[in-house]
Amino acid sequence: MTARSAPLRVGLAGFGTVGRAVARQLQRETDVDLVAILNRRAPIWPAGAVADPVRWTDSIDDLLDFQLDVFVELIGGRDPATDWIRAALRRGISVVTANKQVMAHDGPELLALAAEHGCQLRYEASVAGGVPVLRAIGGGLAGDTLVGLRGILNGTCNYILSRMEQDGASFSVALEEAQRLGFAEANPSQDIDGLDARAKLAILAFIGFHLHAPVDAIAARSIAPVTPFDFTYARRLGCTIRQVASASCDASRRQLSAAVGPALVSLDSPLARVSGSENLVTVTGELGGETTYGGRGAGGDPTAVAVVSDVLAIARRATASTPRRFTAVGEVADASAAPYYLRFTVRDRPGIIAALAAILAARDINIDAILQEPGFASTARPFVVTIDPAPASAIHGALDDIRALDFHVADPLALPIVTAAVTEVVA
Amino acid sequence: MTARSAPLRVGLAGFGTVGRAVARQLQRETDVDLVAILNRRAPIWPAGAVADPVRWTDSIDDLLDFQLDVFVELIGGRDPATDWIRAALRRGISVVTANKQVMAHDGPELLALAAEHGCQLRYEASVAGGVPVLRAIGGGLAGDTLVGLRGILNGTCNYILSRMEQDGASFSVALEEAQRLGFAEANPSQDIDGLDARAKLAILAFIGFHLHAPVDAIAARSIAPVTPFDFTYARRLGCTIRQVASASCDASRRQLSAAVGPALVSLDSPLARVSGSENLVTVTGELGGETTYGGRGAGGDPTAVAVVSDVLAIARRATASTPRRFTAVGEVADASAAPYYLRFTVRDRPGIIAALAAILAARDINIDAILQEPGFASTARPFVVTIDPAPASAIHGALDDIRALDFHVADPLALPIVTAAVTEVVA
Repeated sequence: MTARSAPLRVGLAGFGTVGRAVARQLQRETDVDLVAILNRRAPIWPAGAVADPVRWTDSIDDLLDFQLDVFVELIGGRDPATDWIRAALRRGISVVTANKQVMAHDGPELLALAAEHGCQLRYEASVAGGVPVLRAIGGGLAGDTLVGLRGILNGTCNYILSRMEQDGASFSVALEEAQRLGFAEANPSQDIDGLDARAKLAILAFIGFHLHAPVDAIAARSIAPVTPFDFTYARRLGCTIRQVASASCDASRRQLSAAVGPALVSLDSPLARVSGSENLVTVTGELGGETTYGGRGAGGDPTAVAVVSDVLAIARRATASTPRRFTAVGEVADASAAPYYLRFTVRDRPGIIAALAAILAARDINIDAILQEPGFASTARPFVVTIDPAPASAIHGALDDIRALDFHVADPLALPIVTAAVTEVVA
Repeated sequence: MTARSAPLRVGLAGFGTVGRAVARQLQRETDVDLVAILNRRAPIWPAGAVADPVRWTDSIDDLLDFQLDVFVELIGGRDPATDWIRAALRRGISVVTANKQVMAHDGPELLALAAEHGCQLRYEASVAGGVPVLRAIGGGLAGDTLVGLRGILNGTCNYILSRMEQDGASFSVALEEAQRLGFAEANPSQDIDGLDARAKLAILAFIGFHLHAPVDAIAARSIAPVTPFDFTYARRLGCTIRQVASASCDASRRQLSAAVGPALVSLDSPLARVSGSENLVTVTGELGGETTYGGRGAGGDPTAVAVVSDVLAIARRATASTPRRFTAVGEVADASAAPYYLRFTVRDRPGIIAALAAILAARDINIDAILQEPGFASTARPFVVTIDPAPASAIHGALDDIRALDFHVADPLALPIVTAAVTEVVA
C-alpha cells in the first residue's frame, strides 16, 4: 500500500480517439509520468492540450528504450501488437492493453510471460469499455464457481437493432445510418457478424471459467438476416431482438459452450433495456447467483477510464488477481439448449407446416406454437414456429434440411429465445 | 503473481449464517487453511459439513495466537468488532470483514492502521453482499473522477415496498410478513429507518469520493410513513417507490451531499426493477458516465463469496487499491435538489390548496401539478402536489410549516422523485 517514490514512467502506442483520451487523463495523474508516445502516423498533438513534454517516436524499439515501467498498447489488431506486448514483457515492462483480439487469442500465453518476467499484464478495457467487469469477475467473484456468462458486448449491433425495433427500419437502412453517424465501420463485418463480441466472450470465458478456447471455435452468427417482421413477431412473444453473447461450462470445468448472435430477449429482461452503445454483462455463480455489470462499452473517455485505472493499479503496486492456470479447450460446443424462434418466409400452399413438422419431429424437436400475422401476400408470407428447448446443433441441422424445401422466398432464420439466467437453459 | 508456498492461515470470528457459509467455502480452497473459529455461543458445527480439523475458541486473544495470516471478522456491530480488528492489524494480521458499521465509522482510520503495519484490510462484503462493487469503484474506476452514487442497498426495505406495490398491502402488514419469513428483524429499525443503508452509503462515499463523513450526519428517513395511496399516485406519475440511497460531491471534492429514504423512481429506471433482496448501485463518473452493478445483496452464500474472494486476493498477494488519503468532512448536506412528491391527507374544506401554495411560494418552491384520485371521503382525502426541482432543505422546511396547519388527518409525506442519473439533479 506504500506509494512509489518516483512517478511511474509510461509509454503509449496508438494515438486515435482512445489514445488521446488516455494521454489527457494520464497527464492529470501525479503518480504517473507519460514520457513518450508512439504514433505510426504523423505525430499530431492538439495544440495546448498537454503541458508536459512528451517525446514522439514511430518505432517500438525507441519507445521501449525510454526506461518505461508501463507500456500502454492501443494500436489494435493482432499484428504487430502481440509482438510489441511480448517485447515489453520480456524486458520486464508491465503492459496495459485495450486489445481484445490479442487477449482473446494469446491472453493466457502473455499472462504467463508477464508472470515469468515479474511484471503485469492488465486488459480491463478489452471487454465492455468503461465497465470494470474483468476486475469484478477475476477478483470479486474469485470465491465463487462461475457457471454462466451472458452479455451485450457490441454497441454497433445494439444501436442497429434498437433502431430497427423503434422505427421498423430495415437492417440495411439502420446500418447505413450507423455508418453515417460513425457508430459503424465502412466494413462492418467485425461488429455485425459477431467477431468483435466473440473475442470479448473468449476473454470473459478464460477469466470466468479458466477455459481458453480457440476464438474461431466459438459460433458467431450475423444480425444481418434480422428483418422488421422479426421485431413484430418478437413483440407478440413479449420479446425484442439483441445480439447476445453467451457462454457456460459444465461441472467438470472442461467443456465450454459458447455462441454469439441475434436472439430474442424478454422485454422484462435487463438485456432488452440496454440502449445505444451500452454494454451489459450478467454472470451466474453457483453460490452468489446472478450479478450484472452495465455501462458504456465504447468511446474514448470510458475506454480511457479502464486503461488509466489499470495504469494506476500498477502505480499503486496492486497486483492482478488473474487466475494463474488456464485449461486449453480445443472445441467449443454451440450455445446451450434453448427455446427457439424459427421464422420462414414462404410462397404459401397447403402442406408447408406438415413438411416442416416432419423434419423437426425427425430430430426430436418439439413445436410449441405457430404464429402468423395477417396482412401479407401469399407469395411472400412470413410466419413463425416457436420450439421447446432444444440444442443449437439440432435446430441448425433441421434448418439445413428445411432450406432444401421449395417454398422459401427468403432464407429461414433461427433465433434462440433468452428467458432467464444462462444456466437455466443449460442442457 | 507467484503463489505462496504455504497455505494462508485464516481465523474466523462469528458463526452465524454467513460464518458457516464462509467456513464451508474456505475449506474447499487449496490456498487457504481455516485453522480456528471463534464462536461466542456454543461451538456447533453441522455434523459432516467439514473434513478438516478446526480449533474452537471463545476468546479473541486465543484466536489471534494461532499464527494467523488473515482474521475474518463476521460478528457484526461496532463493539467489540472494532477493537478486535485493531488488535489483529497491530499484530500485522490482515483482516477481511463484512462489517458495515465498523467500516462506515472507522474505515479510514483502520485502513491507515493496516498500511502502517504492512497488512491489508478488505471489506467487499460490507456493501451490497455478493456484488463486487467496492472493487469496481476503488480499482476499476480509479482513473475517473466520480461525482454521483445511487443505490438500493437494503433488501428488507425493498421486499416490503415491493409487496406494498404488488398487493396494495399496508406497511405494517408487509413488515409483519417480512418478519414472519425471516427477511426482517424483530426490531426492524436498522432497515426501515435507513440506518443500514446509510452506513453502506458512507462506505461508498469514502471509496468513491475519498470523503469520510460522520455516519450520523447523513439524513436517513423511514419508509414507515409510505401508504398504499402513495403507490397509487406514484403509478399515475409513471413511478414506484423504493428506499434509495444517494450521494454526490461538488467539483472541489470537499462537500458531500447524501441521504437515504423512500423515493419515487421511474418505472423505466433500473431502480424500479430491483426485486426482493437484490441490490443495485449506480455510479456516475465525469469521464466514464454511468455504470451499474447489481445482484444479491444479502444471504449467507452471496455474502460469503465476497468474504472468500477477499481472502483469496490476500492469498494471491493482490494488494488492495483503496485510496490512501481521505478528506474528513464534518457536515453532510441533505439530498441534492430534486423534483418532489408531496402527499397530504386532509379533512377537506375550501382554502387548503391556497394555504399550501402560499407556504411553498414563500420558500420559492414551484408547484408542478396537483393530483387527486376520486373515491375518498372528504374527512380523510389524500391528494398529491408535485414540485419542480427544489433543495431537500427547502422542502422539509416548508413541510414543517405546513404541518402546523389544522386540516391534516395524517402526517404529510415528501418523497424526492428520482428520474435520472444522480448528477443531473445536483443543484
